[in-house]
Amino acid sequence: MKIALAQLNYHVGNIEYNTQKIIAAIEDAKNQKAEIVVFAELALCGYPPLDLLEFEEFISNCENAILTIARACNNITAIVGAPSRNNKKFGKALYNSAFVLSNGKIIEIYHKALLPNYDVFDEFRYFEPSVNFQCLNINQTKIALTICEDLWNIGENPMYPFSPMDVLIKEQPQLIINIAASPFSDTHHQERLKILKENSLKYQLPIAYVNHCGTQTELIFDGGSLILNSNGEVCEQLPFFDEEIRIIDTENLIPLNKSNIPYKAELLYKAIVSGIKDYFQKMNFKQAILGLSGGVDSALVLVLATEALGAENVKAILLPSQFSSDHSINDAKQLAENLNCPYEIIPITAAYKSVEESLQPYFKNLPFNIAEENIQSRLRGLLLMALSNKFGYILLNTSNKSELAVGYGTLYGDMAGGLSVIGDLYKTEVYELCQYINREKEIIPKNILLKAPSAELRPNQKDSDSLPEYDILDQILKLYIEEKLGPEKIIAKGFDVATTNRIIQLVNIAEYKRKQFCPILRVSDKAFGLGRRIPIVAKYF
Amino acid sequence: MKIALAQLNYHVGNIEYNTQKIIAAIEDAKNQKAEIVVFAELALCGYPPLDLLEFEEFISNCENAILTIARACNNITAIVGAPSRNNKKFGKALYNSAFVLSNGKIIEIYHKALLPNYDVFDEFRYFEPSVNFQCLNINQTKIALTICEDLWNIGENPMYPFSPMDVLIKEQPQLIINIAASPFSDTHHQERLKILKENSLKYQLPIAYVNHCGTQTELIFDGGSLILNSNGEVCEQLPFFDEEIRIIDTENLIPLNKSNIPYKAELLYKAIVSGIKDYFQKMNFKQAILGLSGGVDSALVLVLATEALGAENVKAILLPSQFSSDHSINDAKQLAENLNCPYEIIPITAAYKSVEESLQPYFKNLPFNIAEENIQSRLRGLLLMALSNKFGYILLNTSNKSELAVGYGTLYGDMAGGLSVIGDLYKTEVYELCQYINREKEIIPKNILLKAPSAELRPNQKDSDSLPEYDILDQILKLYIEEKLGPEKIIAKGFDVATTNRIIQLVNIAEYKRKQFCPILRVSDKAFGLGRRIPIVAKYF
Repeated sequence: MKIALAQLNYHVGNIEYNTQKIIAAIEDAKNQKAEIVVFAELALCGYPPLDLLEFEEFISNCENAILTIARACNNITAIVGAPSRNNKKFGKALYNSAFVLSNGKIIEIYHKALLPNYDVFDEFRYFEPSVNFQCLNINQTKIALTICEDLWNIGENPMYPFSPMDVLIKEQPQLIINIAASPFSDTHHQERLKILKENSLKYQLPIAYVNHCGTQTELIFDGGSLILNSNGEVCEQLPFFDEEIRIIDTENLIPLNKSNIPYKAELLYKAIVSGIKDYFQKMNFKQAILGLSGGVDSALVLVLATEALGAENVKAILLPSQFSSDHSINDAKQLAENLNCPYEIIPITAAYKSVEESLQPYFKNLPFNIAEENIQSRLRGLLLMALSNKFGYILLNTSNKSELAVGYGTLYGDMAGGLSVIGDLYKTEVYELCQYINREKEIIPKNILLKAPSAELRPNQKDSDSLPEYDILDQILKLYIEEKLGPEKIIAKGFDVATTNRIIQLVNIAEYKRKQFCPILRVSDKAFGLGRRIPIVAKYF
Repeated sequence: MKIALAQLNYHVGNIEYNTQKIIAAIEDAKNQKAEIVVFAELALCGYPPLDLLEFEEFISNCENAILTIARACNNITAIVGAPSRNNKKFGKALYNSAFVLSNGKIIEIYHKALLPNYDVFDEFRYFEPSVNFQCLNINQTKIALTICEDLWNIGENPMYPFSPMDVLIKEQPQLIINIAASPFSDTHHQERLKILKENSLKYQLPIAYVNHCGTQTELIFDGGSLILNSNGEVCEQLPFFDEEIRIIDTENLIPLNKSNIPYKAELLYKAIVSGIKDYFQKMNFKQAILGLSGGVDSALVLVLATEALGAENVKAILLPSQFSSDHSINDAKQLAENLNCPYEIIPITAAYKSVEESLQPYFKNLPFNIAEENIQSRLRGLLLMALSNKFGYILLNTSNKSELAVGYGTLYGDMAGGLSVIGDLYKTEVYELCQYINREKEIIPKNILLKAPSAELRPNQKDSDSLPEYDILDQILKLYIEEKLGPEKIIAKGFDVATTNRIIQLVNIAEYKRKQFCPILRVSDKAFGLGRRIPIVAKYF
């Protein structure tokens, strides 16, 4: 059968926009003689709709939109992900459903059975799991229609007591369709392919898999929709991060010669660029601003932002203090010039002096410490926000995951911003991505990559004065944050006892700071933000 | 049988502290000849432990602590809430359990069946629901042991397909024990009593109910543990917000003459004071600082903070600009004096001028607008944070729920702070609480309560210049936020179309600000923060 995989970038909550996009894709698929066109999980409302699902009016709007889409379905069947109501006397109010639309009508509604509720997922908050399963018949083809997690209960320690496919397979379907909302991480596409292959091999069936692309605040969807044949071989692979509607004849599946999946650095680069672009487009913003320090983090953010928004739409601001080194200013200028990016220099020295004088009656002769360091950082935040408010720029945050982890940043200072661009990249990954950017020519001045990291908030300060070297730090952080190993287990791996305990304490103490941080573009399996929930007043480890 | 209800204030994550507290209570109960002592849900690890549960080492620590507690159980049986492992091949890794400890050993482990996953609750993220139910026998008494939500599936539209009590009742138990972690809201204690009464009447059984007291970051637990007889009458009522271990003879239950539940304003007052106190104690902080503007919000926060921490531990800072009115300064001073609270006056005019000059080359002759207003607010935030950093004060935030809702506040300015004290009180409730505080004598100067609210960021500014009157605003906000009505339904209730739509747009646009806000002491059924999850880039309504 001719099937259209519609890999689209929806706008969460924006039912009208998504409806128009879905109808346009149906027309397109129809023109290309597809018998069936498949859209992603919760395509209609975007993913994740979160508590918008708790508004009765929002659900009514979804229901009306589904009827509008159904009216566009003539001579084609569409499968559209959307919420539907649970009309039983008990249970959650909604199902996470796949609507089957044909001949101007809703002909079937299938419900998701396995509801992920870990990491960034909260589906059990809204949805009742399905317990009834039946195949779908379209033009003499029997299809096992599943929704994302429904295929994931495979392997040695399944999270759920049963797998819908184990019921559906009894009807001897010819094809599995899986509509998904599967967010990007730097390894997740591999995991996803593995799971799909396992299903294909276990049930000896081809699988058509349709994912979202585009970013919803922090969640980046990488697309990568595909078709496997019944031997688990990839026969069609849609692009990463971009929209496409591809028509495929399931009778004629030919394995691809080689994988066209990009490598890690390229994936990260594309993911983050897509994340910035969509944040601005969906929020209806145009121009960004950021503080350019001459360090590696803001350098990377500037490159990514100019790629996403165009150099003319990114304003770099150098905010030197008396502690800023000449090379920092020169390196920052050089980078802005390499990128053709407008920049300004606004020294903070005068404002700093004035604040110092206002506080002199209270600070008296107390020694210079973190208070004065933070004043500089917060004055920078204040000036950047003033420019943001005056001219409508959106402030991009430049903190990396290592410093967010240990609290090496100033709340309302360098932790300010509307979007964290590299907050899910450890410092070592920041360098890797810079190397990738410089792979053909020196876009980021070499000096930025070679010098020792420093916040330059006091004379001759170095990050390594107060933190272990980043290659050690990042290893401990990954074990603690990603692998969820406690101090005993980390120490057992050979890390220094005092260093390990100190790093873990720093991570724990910084929860209150991260609570007030902006959304972070998520590119790992465990980012700070909605996927990691730690109580603030807690004492542990 | 003689039962001890142990209503205690745990420290989330702090297994060692909680273990000591539990063991001390067991000793106490034993000395008072109790046969059984009952602790709250997840007492061992505190509630909510959130993702700490995902650390294998944390669970091992819990297991060791349970064995330590068991060793203290001689001549008494203890029921202690704690996580336990799911050893089945499938499902989530843990159960939310009640350990029955006696003769130095674990004699039974009961698991929670109904796992709340709405509002602030995320239990399905961690726990597998129980499907097997059996009564517990202690000293010839047959007990139906249930955990919080297990009793809540009662009424017309149950959320879950079955109720554990409907199974347990077949064994003809003589008593229901319910161990809970039921957070405070201004109406929740009534709802809780109603549910418990319904259970008692339905099953014709007495119920011993044990709740937490104390605050874990934003979640305030009000205690209010109680015993109902089999006619649903309250026979024992433990205090609100305070710890107590009470010994009760279940053979001799006498209904109380009258309710000793405080009224709303008193409850709110006690709840918030408890919230501040616990935040400081559990974070090991001592002194607070806040900006005192002469307005009603900061006045209320100052009163609550001095009650919680002692006037000598709260520093009020007046930060006047050229737009501050004389009466604001005088009212603020008068309040601080009424409370015997130390205060300082730090004008922001000089620092403001200096920032203005730094920006002059860019702002040129553009008219004064929100940018300049926010500079003032952010300078105040910066100065308060500088004092906080220098002297170790914790900055208390003074924003109310109405302004947080519509985004009437400056990120990194008046939205700064470690804890939001009144962020779950609408402006009209702020006034109600002030009236309560002034019920006997004028603590808050009358002028603060009488004058029109103003941010004083430009000449003659009034809140009502840009917002509807607060009594209208708060009604619309409640319908939208608490009742989750969409614009159509709110307008259908008779509110102005343009006003309603404008307010809803303001609420929606401000999601990005609230994302970066500090934890809010939760006193309503729907507070901003972890119980309300709205996507930021979304477009809706």
